[in-house]
Amino acid sequence: MDIATVIGLVSGTILVVAAVMVGGKPALFLDIPSLLIVGGGTIATTFIRFSMKDVFNSVKVAMKAFIYQIPPVDEVVRQMVRYAQIAKKEGLIALENQRPADDFMAKALRYLADGYDEGLIEDMLEKDIRLTVERHTIGQNVFKSMASSAPAFGMIGTLIGLVQMLSSLSEPSTLGPSMALALLTTLYGALIAYLVCIPIADKLAMRSKQEQYIKKIIREAAIYMCQGITPLVLEESLKIYLSPKDRDKINYYRVKP
Amino acid sequence: MDIATVIGLVSGTILVVAAVMVGGKPALFLDIPSLLIVGGGTIATTFIRFSMKDVFNSVKVAMKAFIYQIPPVDEVVRQMVRYAQIAKKEGLIALENQRPADDFMAKALRYLADGYDEGLIEDMLEKDIRLTVERHTIGQNVFKSMASSAPAFGMIGTLIGLVQMLSSLSEPSTLGPSMALALLTTLYGALIAYLVCIPIADKLAMRSKQEQYIKKIIREAAIYMCQGITPLVLEESLKIYLSPKDRDKINYYRVKP
Amino acid sequence: MDIATVIGLVSGTILVVAAVMVGGKPALFLDIPSLLIVGGGTIATTFIRFSMKDVFNSVKVAMKAFIYQIPPVDEVVRQMVRYAQIAKKEGLIALENQRPADDFMAKALRYLADGYDEGLIEDMLEKDIRLTVERHTIGQNVFKSMASSAPAFGMIGTLIGLVQMLSSLSEPSTLGPSMALALLTTLYGALIAYLVCIPIADKLAMRSKQEQYIKKIIREAAIYMCQGITPLVLEESLKIYLSPKDRDKINYYRVKP
Amino acid sequence: MDIATVIGLVSGTILVVAAVMVGGKPALFLDIPSLLIVGGGTIATTFIRFSMKDVFNSVKVAMKAFIYQIPPVDEVVRQMVRYAQIAKKEGLIALENQRPADDFMAKALRYLADGYDEGLIEDMLEKDIRLTVERHTIGQNVFKSMASSAPAFGMIGTLIGLVQMLSSLSEPSTLGPSMALALLTTLYGALIAYLVCIPIADKLAMRSKQEQYIKKIIREAAIYMCQGITPLVLEESLKIYLSPKDRDKINYYRVKP
Amino acid sequence: MDIATVIGLVSGTILVVAAVMVGGKPALFLDIPSLLIVGGGTIATTFIRFSMKDVFNSVKVAMKAFIYQIPPVDEVVRQMVRYAQIAKKEGLIALENQRPADDFMAKALRYLADGYDEGLIEDMLEKDIRLTVERHTIGQNVFKSMASSAPAFGMIGTLIGLVQMLSSLSEPSTLGPSMALALLTTLYGALIAYLVCIPIADKLAMRSKQEQYIKKIIREAAIYMCQGITPLVLEESLKIYLSPKDRDKINYYRVKP
Repeated sequence: MDIATVIGLVSGTILVVAAVMVGGKPALFLDIPSLLIVGGGTIATTFIRFSMKDVFNSVKVAMKAFIYQIPPVDEVVRQMVRYAQIAKKEGLIALENQRPADDFMAKALRYLADGYDEGLIEDMLEKDIRLTVERHTIGQNVFKSMASSAPAFGMIGTLIGLVQMLSSLSEPSTLGPSMALALLTTLYGALIAYLVCIPIADKLAMRSKQEQYIKKIIREAAIYMCQGITPLVLEESLKIYLSPKDRDKINYYRVKP
Repeated sequence: MDIATVIGLVSGTILVVAAVMVGGKPALFLDIPSLLIVGGGTIATTFIRFSMKDVFNSVKVAMKAFIYQIPPVDEVVRQMVRYAQIAKKEGLIALENQRPADDFMAKALRYLADGYDEGLIEDMLEKDIRLTVERHTIGQNVFKSMASSAPAFGMIGTLIGLVQMLSSLSEPSTLGPSMALALLTTLYGALIAYLVCIPIADKLAMRSKQEQYIKKIIREAAIYMCQGITPLVLEESLKIYLSPKDRDKINYYRVKP
Repeated sequence: MDIATVIGLVSGTILVVAAVMVGGKPALFLDIPSLLIVGGGTIATTFIRFSMKDVFNSVKVAMKAFIYQIPPVDEVVRQMVRYAQIAKKEGLIALENQRPADDFMAKALRYLADGYDEGLIEDMLEKDIRLTVERHTIGQNVFKSMASSAPAFGMIGTLIGLVQMLSSLSEPSTLGPSMALALLTTLYGALIAYLVCIPIADKLAMRSKQEQYIKKIIREAAIYMCQGITPLVLEESLKIYLSPKDRDKINYYRVKP
Repeated sequence: MDIATVIGLVSGTILVVAAVMVGGKPALFLDIPSLLIVGGGTIATTFIRFSMKDVFNSVKVAMKAFIYQIPPVDEVVRQMVRYAQIAKKEGLIALENQRPADDFMAKALRYLADGYDEGLIEDMLEKDIRLTVERHTIGQNVFKSMASSAPAFGMIGTLIGLVQMLSSLSEPSTLGPSMALALLTTLYGALIAYLVCIPIADKLAMRSKQEQYIKKIIREAAIYMCQGITPLVLEESLKIYLSPKDRDKINYYRVKP
Repeated sequence: MDIATVIGLVSGTILVVAAVMVGGKPALFLDIPSLLIVGGGTIATTFIRFSMKDVFNSVKVAMKAFIYQIPPVDEVVRQMVRYAQIAKKEGLIALENQRPADDFMAKALRYLADGYDEGLIEDMLEKDIRLTVERHTIGQNVFKSMASSAPAFGMIGTLIGLVQMLSSLSEPSTLGPSMALALLTTLYGALIAYLVCIPIADKLAMRSKQEQYIKKIIREAAIYMCQGITPLVLEESLKIYLSPKDRDKINYYRVKP
């Protein structure tokens, strides 16, 4: 599980709860009808925007994204260089016996071992990357759309509350509490959007980008292997994907075939 | 009909109505002149922005979009693999006798059977996809433009109400109800935009994207068939369009020619 | 003249005037100084943003856009197929005697009759389309920039009014009317932007897109004619530009050469 | 100097000053501390965003942009056609003796006379255009960034004023004037952004686009001259850059070599 | 260290502090709980959005960006022309003995000396530039995301404060100070976003662009050297990267090999 997300969500919630407690009357901040209009309205519009399948899927995708461990970049580079060494010595066909843990890497090796030609390998791996990104984007969009609906329904709830309050302005003593109640929906909307949905959509986008980064390394290595480029040049080329300070960690002669 | 849309629209409306009822005076929230200025202003500006034909068309397109059933992706893949098997065995000309339900698929098969060359098939199918998307975009834009006009006219209505109220501030007892009335247009504008128009525009965009997805599969399959690629490789390539967990559902040897 | 625009502008104005009349004191809503600061400020910034020529041109372009009748798409397709039939029978040189009403179509035929080579025809027609779009864009930008200036000057007017009102708060009886007056500029700004400028900018953009659509059909037909493609295939290709229900209206054998 | 800009800036300022004078107490609207926080804050953040060199340069670039006279498009077209006629008659080498006023045109002629090959000429002129645009963009960005900082510091100033006012609410008689003072920074921010910075940034962008337009004509003409295309076709091609009504002003046989 | 940034941050802070001091009660503006909700909430959401490594890295990247001295453009051009002269006289292999201070320049020379072919050099240098930009973008995004979170948590804090204040409206004497306190979080959010985070994100973006500019010059020079273009033409081509007034500073015959 992604630790930063947990720390962020928990500490953010604690801060808000603490701010509410400090005022002395936390019960004030819990109003079920207000919660229903904001939460319910947000979910309702999410259903209009997407298909039911996409909404439920997006939750699953989000969960999986937090648990799925993206392999470290330098490890992927090292692995691909090793495969290139094997391919150089024993031919592409020898890759058939390799069983990498990563699905995409396994697929790339299989294409190479099956002798697909370079153009086809490039097209198919490219397409795989592009379509995976598209699938991930739906999940991000579900959270983004909730992030834009929540403040809108917060405002709608506050407007309803204000209209009700203003129409019975004759009793000035209730004005304060009524207005406080009306503002609650705006607060709920802001919290749902800025504390939960926007950050999660951003984290999903970032994870999708990282996964894509790994896949691009694998695709490039596969194409180079298909072209028969020497493992040494391949290593030189793949090392560019590492951050400068990680580049020295990879060294051709230390990569055991 | 798209069930998620119905559920979303109905439950969203119920939530808002419930929030209004809870306050005890629902009649307060219905004001015909306010409704006219927001609804009428929104429709008026929509007519300025688009041609009359586009406005009416967009409603029709929206309706059709909700009823039209997009064929499932795996079914399309299976069908195209079957056609590729037929083409491989009996030649492209044999596709003449196939009668797929989908118009675009039928057109692609006709081009193949008529012996058009690869470049022309690619151009024409590509153009078809692009122009269909452009047509769909107009419908989405009508809803998006209404979504931006409605809150604007909500604000205009509220400003008119405020000016009228403030100029006769001498009678403080009417201040509350007048202000409540003035705020109603803002509420109407927000509801039209955030509960109806934006989600519908998004759903139309999503459906357009799904239709485009299906068409891209068909186009790719047609081009590969024209190039004479074996059905097995075609299947391998088209399976990338499926979500990972659906990929095993398709299996070459189970696809009956 | 574009009817939808007239209907939209007139009905939108009637709705706003009606909302103002209902309140009983329409004179309240007319304040010359407020009108001057919003209208004048908007025009002043428009002059800073653009050259004088562009500002005056944009009005002319807007006028012309509303009067200029864009030829119907199916008519353009039918015409181009007819020219292709003539070119097939009598050679491209025969197009010299054709006198189409549309300037761009006439230019395309002239290039074909003059025997320009395919690359040059494509480049020059492409460039014509691109530069026409750029010219149209200036007109749209003038209206868009007014749409963003008007609410800003509405706010500036209101701020000036508020500062004046607040500094003499000692006479509370005038507070209401002063505030009403201050809000007028915000109302003017909103009306100029949302009722007039944004919708007109959008309509201009849409008309530009329609004109571009027609020109793209002509360009494609000209290139195909230059390549010597048969009129039947040309018709098949151009029909994709029609909406599905209009496609049956065109039929090769009914197009009289 | 660009007249429209002067007219716009002067008339806009007069309008705002007039609106302030009408209220009777213009001194109210001048508050040095408020001016300092908005103006100073805007300048301070501009220094954080850009390098010192860029900030000072952008002012110089802006000045130069208003004084520098962009040559009229039809004149440029006429000149390039004349050079093409010379090149056709006397060879590209003859362009060596031509001394056009425009730097970019002079550079293009020099490349042609020096016998650079087509690809190199295209690359170098293209790069020149692209990098000039990038340089201009920095100047625009300085003004755009000030346009976004000014309202932000206007709001910060108002918030500081409000906090100070609210904390000493016990003396209600000063509430009005204090609030008026607090709002002044918002007014200053809006004026700096909407009356000065945004329009100037837009004007700079427009001038940059016009300069680019001229350069693109010169580049295209240079490439065509290098390819040896006849001056008549060159004229035909360059005329597309003119607005339709200016096209008849250029006529090959009237262009004197 | 980047001086403009320091001047901007210090002078901006002084201005705000001065504005606060002028009001007489600076203690009013310091409230630890308010600071905690805005600062803490901003940091919490930043952790949800990014990985922990990215957050800490972005601070390091920011620090390094302010200290790292980007070499002046004209110096880079002069150096590359000098290397081209050496390569022309003694062959590309002679570049092996050159030890430029800049890492990217050293890498380009090494590729040339090692005899990599043109396509590979172009690909690898291109990829290096692109991936460096991607790495820099993460740092900018961390600051941009804090700039969007801070005002949101400012608003959340104010809403919590307003609800608490309104619910105990019975004691009107505390209304002013409570409201002042509630507004503080909005002020903090605005300062964090507009005085610190947005300008720093922009400065990082600008520095990344400058670094990229230098690298593009080096890449272009390397490709030209690989193609064997004469140093004179190379100089002509690279001079376009200089601002017009700096171009005369470079002169082939003054560049000592």
